[in-house]
Amino acid sequence: MRAYPRPLETLIHHLKRLPGVGQKTAERYAFHLLKSEAKEVSSFASSLATIKEEIKSCSECGCFMHEGKCPYCERGGRLSTSLCIVSSIKDVFVIEETHIFQGLYHVIPKLLSPLDGHYEEQIEIGKIKMRIDKWHIKEVIIAIDSTLEGDATSLYIKQELSHYPLKISRLALGMPLGSSLDFVDEGTLSRAFLGRQPL
Amino acid sequence: MRAYPRPLETLIHHLKRLPGVGQKTAERYAFHLLKSEAKEVSSFASSLATIKEEIKSCSECGCFMHEGKCPYCERGGRLSTSLCIVSSIKDVFVIEETHIFQGLYHVIPKLLSPLDGHYEEQIEIGKIKMRIDKWHIKEVIIAIDSTLEGDATSLYIKQELSHYPLKISRLALGMPLGSSLDFVDEGTLSRAFLGRQPL
Repeated sequence: MRAYPRPLETLIHHLKRLPGVGQKTAERYAFHLLKSEAKEVSSFASSLATIKEEIKSCSECGCFMHEGKCPYCERGGRLSTSLCIVSSIKDVFVIEETHIFQGLYHVIPKLLSPLDGHYEEQIEIGKIKMRIDKWHIKEVIIAIDSTLEGDATSLYIKQELSHYPLKISRLALGMPLGSSLDFVDEGTLSRAFLGRQPL
Repeated sequence: MRAYPRPLETLIHHLKRLPGVGQKTAERYAFHLLKSEAKEVSSFASSLATIKEEIKSCSECGCFMHEGKCPYCERGGRLSTSLCIVSSIKDVFVIEETHIFQGLYHVIPKLLSPLDGHYEEQIEIGKIKMRIDKWHIKEVIIAIDSTLEGDATSLYIKQELSHYPLKISRLALGMPLGSSLDFVDEGTLSRAFLGRQPL
C-alpha cells in the first residue's frame, strides 16, 4: 500500500465507498480534488454535509419531499386511484420524465433477495395495503427491474394483493425501441413473442 | 432533464466534476450517498472540507508535506545528488513503492501541451535549475509518462539542462514485465529493440 498522508488516506477511504469505485479510481478522484480550487472543494463539501438534512423522504410513499410536502401524495392533480410500485426513488424520476403516468407512487425499500438477507417483511407490504384502502386504489402497476429479484418481488406483491378488487399489471417485457432482432437476447425475444400485441 | 430537488442537483453537479464521471454515474453516486448512513456522509463531508487545508505541498519540490515538513527535501537519509522529475505528486508515491530510488523529487506543474494552453514557462524550469545548483545535483532522472506530451516535455527539460555537468536519463521504454510479445504494441516493441541490453 502507498503511504499517503493520513487525511488523504481518509478521503480515499470515503471515495472508495461510492458504488463501483475501487482503490485506483478513488485515488484518481482524491488527487483531482486536491488539484481543484479550494472554493470548489469546499462548496462540494458543504453540499455533501447538508444533503441528508435537506432531502427527506415522504413517510407514506417514500418519494422525496419538496419544500416540506410530498409532490405526489399531498399535491392535487394526480390520479389517486392508480398506484405505481417501484424499488428505488430514482425510478420515480425516470418514470416522471415519460409523462405517461399520473398516479401515485410507492417506493419499496428493497427487492426480495434471501441470499443478501432481504426477506419478505422488508417489502413492508402492510404499508401498500394500507394505502390501497386509504386511497381506494383501483389499479396497481408494478414497475420493478426485470431481474431475478425483481421477478420474485413482483410475484410476492401480486400474491399478497390477490384478494383485493384490483387491476394488477407489470411493465411489458419486450424489444427496446429502435433495436434490431439481431441484437436482442433470447430471453427478451421469447418474452416479446409471448407478449405480442394485435396490430 | 430530470427535475431533481435543488440540493440533489447541486450534489450531482459537484460529483460530475470528478474525472471520468458523467451525469449517470454522478446520479448513481448521489443516490448512493442519500441512502448511506448520515454519520458516514457527514464524515465524508468533513474529510473533504479540510483536505485542502491539511495537505500542503512543499514549495521547493512540490511533494506533500508531512507534519509541516517535506519528507524528501527536509529529511536526512536521502541521496541529495540525484533528482527525479515527475509530472504528478501521485507518481512520487508510485516510485516510492518500488524502493529503487532514494534521491530527491521534483514535481513539474504541467506537461507541455500547446494545444491545451500549457507552454514552456509553465514547466518552471528555473526552479529545477535553482535546485540543481543548491543541492549540487549530479544525476537527473526524468520519470514522465511516455506520451506525446511527456516526450516533448522530457526533450525540453533535457535541452534546458544540457549545459550542466549532469547525467540525464529517462525511464526505459520496453516490454512490461510478464508480458508476451504477442500482446505488446508495435511502438513499444520497436523501443524495446532499440533499447536492448547485453545479457
